[in-house]
Amino acid sequence: MPRYALKVEYQGAPFAGWQRQKELPSVQGAIEEALSRLEPGPHTIAAAGRTDAGVHALGQVAHCDLSKEWDPFRLSEALNYHLKPQPVAILAAARVEDDWHARFSAIERQYLFRILIRRAPATHDKGQVWQIGHPLDVEAMQAGADMLIGRHDFTTFRSSICQAASPVKTLDELRVERAEGLSGPEVHFHVRARSFLHNQVRSFVGTLERVGAGAWTPEDVRDALEAADRAACGPVCPPQGLYLARVGYPDDPFA
Amino acid sequence: MPRYALKVEYQGAPFAGWQRQKELPSVQGAIEEALSRLEPGPHTIAAAGRTDAGVHALGQVAHCDLSKEWDPFRLSEALNYHLKPQPVAILAAARVEDDWHARFSAIERQYLFRILIRRAPATHDKGQVWQIGHPLDVEAMQAGADMLIGRHDFTTFRSSICQAASPVKTLDELRVERAEGLSGPEVHFHVRARSFLHNQVRSFVGTLERVGAGAWTPEDVRDALEAADRAACGPVCPPQGLYLARVGYPDDPFA
Repeated sequence: MPRYALKVEYQGAPFAGWQRQKELPSVQGAIEEALSRLEPGPHTIAAAGRTDAGVHALGQVAHCDLSKEWDPFRLSEALNYHLKPQPVAILAAARVEDDWHARFSAIERQYLFRILIRRAPATHDKGQVWQIGHPLDVEAMQAGADMLIGRHDFTTFRSSICQAASPVKTLDELRVERAEGLSGPEVHFHVRARSFLHNQVRSFVGTLERVGAGAWTPEDVRDALEAADRAACGPVCPPQGLYLARVGYPDDPFA
Repeated sequence: MPRYALKVEYQGAPFAGWQRQKELPSVQGAIEEALSRLEPGPHTIAAAGRTDAGVHALGQVAHCDLSKEWDPFRLSEALNYHLKPQPVAILAAARVEDDWHARFSAIERQYLFRILIRRAPATHDKGQVWQIGHPLDVEAMQAGADMLIGRHDFTTFRSSICQAASPVKTLDELRVERAEGLSGPEVHFHVRARSFLHNQVRSFVGTLERVGAGAWTPEDVRDALEAADRAACGPVCPPQGLYLARVGYPDDPFA
């Protein structure tokens, strides 16, 4: 059966997460349902990152096996037709080798986290940002973020239900920058690693927000990391500002 | 009765426009309803621009008269509380003179129009952009836009139901620029004038899109303007990419 890679964008809000669940709407379930309109199922697709409830994607990658040879552009068009009106879109499709795997072939994941700094409730960006009413010191947040770069035991920043074999990971990038959005000033976190622990990005952002607010020093972040203790983490921030932005492969199937 | 200016942000999609209508949801109606939770009504508020159905605002300005003296910050907080969960937010409130008028005191309106260039349906920006599947020549669009700057008879770019006394207006700015959005490449139109005719911005954008697509030349835009004939206009574009961005006053009440 020919295998196809799919680049997927979605809003997290209406879904209980990526992973298919009985009785609950999921992004995986929505795409598998659309696939069954093209070829009789059941279909089971695999994704690079199984995002939690409320988490968005700009460039999630999944793969599916179909019995027919599909022109990749026509496949993406047909899936988008059947996905409507759900906020899930296939941005690109590509024919890949039979042993290519959206999750196991991936060598890098990149996340974006958006904070909107303002008091009045968001309208255009409702459910798409974490809204904060106080100013944030971006330089202090970056100083705290710098403590986390590199290869570490990230037990402090890992949810208690994380199933990864080891808490040791290498964080390649954690960049904090100001941005100007439609609704006002934002702070963006660009986070990049080969792979992540469960809730790692939200644990980073929640902790660094404390630094930005002045409640923690950048050195407190280093101490929390070195404690290797979940109890040393700052508050885990809410999911709605988090986007799976990009998945990297040795050869980009969509290039 | 003390008068207050309100800076208002809203999503256009759920509303039949700014103006209160029987049996239909409107932004004006939503704010008047919230005001009646603070002080017994009826309340009638006036706005700088009565946006059409589906048109958004980043910085609409309205005014209201209340019997009590309100702290402006507490007024905006109380209104936001009662406006929830509707996508309408009071960004700021200010005490103004009794003869200050959101519409008649305004000396400038600024609109933003967003085109998203991509084929796959928008998810994060659904209902917030006009989506176009083909490339656009931004330089040609700017050349066409330049034909419209200045004082002209804009009959061509005026809806047949426009109630303005004269079709002669002065267009101060019509700038076309590339922008990078969360969902891909965008084209933004920044349009500024003392006042506008009904559907003028959407008539401009729909016509300039034809230039960007190569169907019209920039000189065709000049010819259409000089025809002073509604039939010479290009297609009027849809409302969902349009935002009332800013209203200017001799003294900014929110400064």
